[in-house]
Amino acid sequence: MTDKLIIFDTTLRDGEQSPGASMTKDEKLRIARLLERLRVDVIEAGFAASSNGDFECIRSIAGAVKDSTICSLSRANDRDIARSAEALAGANRARIHVFLATSPLHMEKKLRMTPEQVFEQAVSSIRFARNLCEDVEFSAEDGYRSDPDFLCRVFEAVIKEGATTINVPDTVGYAIPELYGDFIKDLRERIPNSDKAIWSVHCHNDLGMAVANSLAGVKIGGARQVECTINGLGERAGNCSLEEVVMAIKTRKDYFGLDVNIDAQHIVAASRMVSQTTGFVVQPNKAVVGANAFAHASGIHQDGVLKARDTYEIMRAEDVGWAANKIVLGKLSGRNAFKQRLQELGVEMESEGEINAAFTRFKELADRKSDIFDEDILALVSDEHAISHKDSFGFVSLSQHSETGERPHAKVVFTAEGKEVQGEADGNGPVDASLKAIESHVKSGAEMVLYSVNAISGSTESQGEVTVRLQSSGRVVNGVGADPDIVVASAKAYLSALNKLQSKSERVAAQG
Amino acid sequence: MTDKLIIFDTTLRDGEQSPGASMTKDEKLRIARLLERLRVDVIEAGFAASSNGDFECIRSIAGAVKDSTICSLSRANDRDIARSAEALAGANRARIHVFLATSPLHMEKKLRMTPEQVFEQAVSSIRFARNLCEDVEFSAEDGYRSDPDFLCRVFEAVIKEGATTINVPDTVGYAIPELYGDFIKDLRERIPNSDKAIWSVHCHNDLGMAVANSLAGVKIGGARQVECTINGLGERAGNCSLEEVVMAIKTRKDYFGLDVNIDAQHIVAASRMVSQTTGFVVQPNKAVVGANAFAHASGIHQDGVLKARDTYEIMRAEDVGWAANKIVLGKLSGRNAFKQRLQELGVEMESEGEINAAFTRFKELADRKSDIFDEDILALVSDEHAISHKDSFGFVSLSQHSETGERPHAKVVFTAEGKEVQGEADGNGPVDASLKAIESHVKSGAEMVLYSVNAISGSTESQGEVTVRLQSSGRVVNGVGADPDIVVASAKAYLSALNKLQSKSERVAAQG
Repeated sequence: MTDKLIIFDTTLRDGEQSPGASMTKDEKLRIARLLERLRVDVIEAGFAASSNGDFECIRSIAGAVKDSTICSLSRANDRDIARSAEALAGANRARIHVFLATSPLHMEKKLRMTPEQVFEQAVSSIRFARNLCEDVEFSAEDGYRSDPDFLCRVFEAVIKEGATTINVPDTVGYAIPELYGDFIKDLRERIPNSDKAIWSVHCHNDLGMAVANSLAGVKIGGARQVECTINGLGERAGNCSLEEVVMAIKTRKDYFGLDVNIDAQHIVAASRMVSQTTGFVVQPNKAVVGANAFAHASGIHQDGVLKARDTYEIMRAEDVGWAANKIVLGKLSGRNAFKQRLQELGVEMESEGEINAAFTRFKELADRKSDIFDEDILALVSDEHAISHKDSFGFVSLSQHSETGERPHAKVVFTAEGKEVQGEADGNGPVDASLKAIESHVKSGAEMVLYSVNAISGSTESQGEVTVRLQSSGRVVNGVGADPDIVVASAKAYLSALNKLQSKSERVAAQG
Repeated sequence: MTDKLIIFDTTLRDGEQSPGASMTKDEKLRIARLLERLRVDVIEAGFAASSNGDFECIRSIAGAVKDSTICSLSRANDRDIARSAEALAGANRARIHVFLATSPLHMEKKLRMTPEQVFEQAVSSIRFARNLCEDVEFSAEDGYRSDPDFLCRVFEAVIKEGATTINVPDTVGYAIPELYGDFIKDLRERIPNSDKAIWSVHCHNDLGMAVANSLAGVKIGGARQVECTINGLGERAGNCSLEEVVMAIKTRKDYFGLDVNIDAQHIVAASRMVSQTTGFVVQPNKAVVGANAFAHASGIHQDGVLKARDTYEIMRAEDVGWAANKIVLGKLSGRNAFKQRLQELGVEMESEGEINAAFTRFKELADRKSDIFDEDILALVSDEHAISHKDSFGFVSLSQHSETGERPHAKVVFTAEGKEVQGEADGNGPVDASLKAIESHVKSGAEMVLYSVNAISGSTESQGEVTVRLQSSGRVVNGVGADPDIVVASAKAYLSALNKLQSKSERVAAQG
């Protein structure tokens, strides 16, 4: 058994499947580049057959990211698999990931197939996939709630057909560490050709144990791949957190005895980028990447004596990139410094014109805000992207007033289909009034299901970063907007959410 | 061994120790009442000797809460223990919780004591505590990193002195489930009188495994008490989450075979109250209590077919109280309905005058917002509390304007030491201007280290709930304010944080 643990990141696939977490192609590409810098072994970039949008995302990531293996999810049918292979054609290293449910409940209720049909389909799909790609992973959806005898039959057969990785997901987050570890150990011991494949774990966090279950799958079960996401992003309570599982392996190397490729220095940057892109906040008491995770890194000094650090801390904040949260640019920074920082952040602009436009906005921001952080730059670039696309809504200007005893009022000017339009409205507060002003023109009828603001970096003069989650005809999208003026940030976030609602994509539901 | 698992909640002690999570006496009392309704077995209400404020909190909770055991933390010295006993005098059932570090690192660096001195102090303090209280818990701080031989000696001796509960904390969140479970199992097997005490686990979440470690301590180790907090609140990455550990025990009763007293229907209410009181947000992908934890409860309908619910969900959202998030009151609700709802929420008002004032504010809110939720009522009552205290700052009125291209301006009128004052300022945004307007008069010099807004309930017309975290001379406080106008909510939050900064309390640092 190898002493290396493969880190398979599925932020862009299983993470994105989380309602409201959908990302644009540019956003996915930016995250993929950061995952590459993080030295993730395998990046699951999407589910090619689920939509044309997903197909294009995978194709562009496969073209841009060269150090990591790029993976596409597929249902166990020839069309899906061929579509994955097509999207992955430009990759340095490609993997096709085929999934099929094996639990009695899923086979009966979701697939409406007999176990025998499932067995046949698993085998034939892997055979087909192996003709197109050397690296093929097979996942038994809801594997942990499947009959072990049946799983043994299926896994033995797909390994014989050439599956190189075997994944045993705890799709519904039902497992307990020692039980899950034993479950995988038993499978590996019973299947004669189990040593011909790498075993993988994929855990959900419904009972708060995704990380512990994954690690038990590794230590007790002998798995050598962990599927995880940045910030534990994912449907319901999310997936196993990349940052937690990686830091556990590193911090407790005495016990696990395994190496991981991950360059942990980029963990905090990755966490912020994913949070900022999706609008999913990270709670302060989140392990590793929460604002309070390291007391001294959050700018907080405990009352009383400063104790020796290792009395209370088992990791160093610097090692996961907390120290990297430095002021990066300011008013006096030039275009080259700005351009270089964009490259370091993994942002690729399509043209010099686009860089110039972003740089102009950067200077405007620097006039209002003395310290510019990486987060500010990312927010600015996201805005830039929204504006540079002709079809989309873009913010132009806003005026609002509120006074105790009077009804708040706002006027918003924005672009729609390339033309400047404006709306005016009253509301319960200036934000409500501004969004109603936009809505008075757009008439989307979308329902707002979430609204939140976080200041980018601490101080009073920070930019506010607003997330707006809209729901319309069963689709849920998050829009994110940033500005030192919260009302403006809210208007930008609302327009960004409207843009995402417009980009219709009929998606096929994938495995959890 | 009993088949009942004791749930020991330390939200009000270890949770509150989290920088920024400090709570007022009224807030603690309100949370304690909700913990009682949740049927928590033991409520750790504070650390009596750490401050007069903490002493008073414990005393009032001991007087008000009758179904749960009330516990006070103490260092292992006579003065602390006597102070705990005094604070607990009015309790129906009282527990004194004595802690002392036993790891080589903590003994040397923090206590500057030899193991022999620690042994003697542990024994004598438990002897002293048992003279004052029948229910005495002993915690070996940093127990998991302690020498097992030494721990055996200490635990055997304190059990002989009458300690009724033995707690083995993983203070720094270093444990792995199977190792932690075995650690406790070995201790229990080696100590001759181990069956004379109930064994307890107290885990921190630095590697994301607090819940799994706690459960391994129970299943493998034989512990029968879990120490936990609502939302996993606590220093750094926090403590074991009450909601996760309880739902794991209930959902996997097939494996654990244990009963818990907890009435899970109140879990979501407790989570919201703690989050709202401390300003610590709960991330959407948090197990059990996150907004996305149950897809269908967050108002989100998945694309495509509606699958059989148990295909993807192992718990029912209603069982943890998600369904309870109903519109509770509106414009037409009378004073009696309002008063009754306050009682159901565990809010006790000191006088009819206070209820009248709160009711007036409720009617004002109902004029602006059609649906009033429990969260709105709690927010309103918190405001009421701030205003009813003479010494504190209170919001009166605000006027602000912002317009693209101009500098945002705000004027805020508020009370300070009973008098109405006002401030005016420009800022980067209307919020910045408003806070600077307040600061122009108050001149606290406090540094803002966190700012966040969450809409209470989804819609555009919701109240915004703002959290402001200020730091000044090493103290960190969170202020929370709610209003349909976010700028007003921000001003209220800032004033509330200033009030907390004023209420000086010199605290002694307790165990983690």
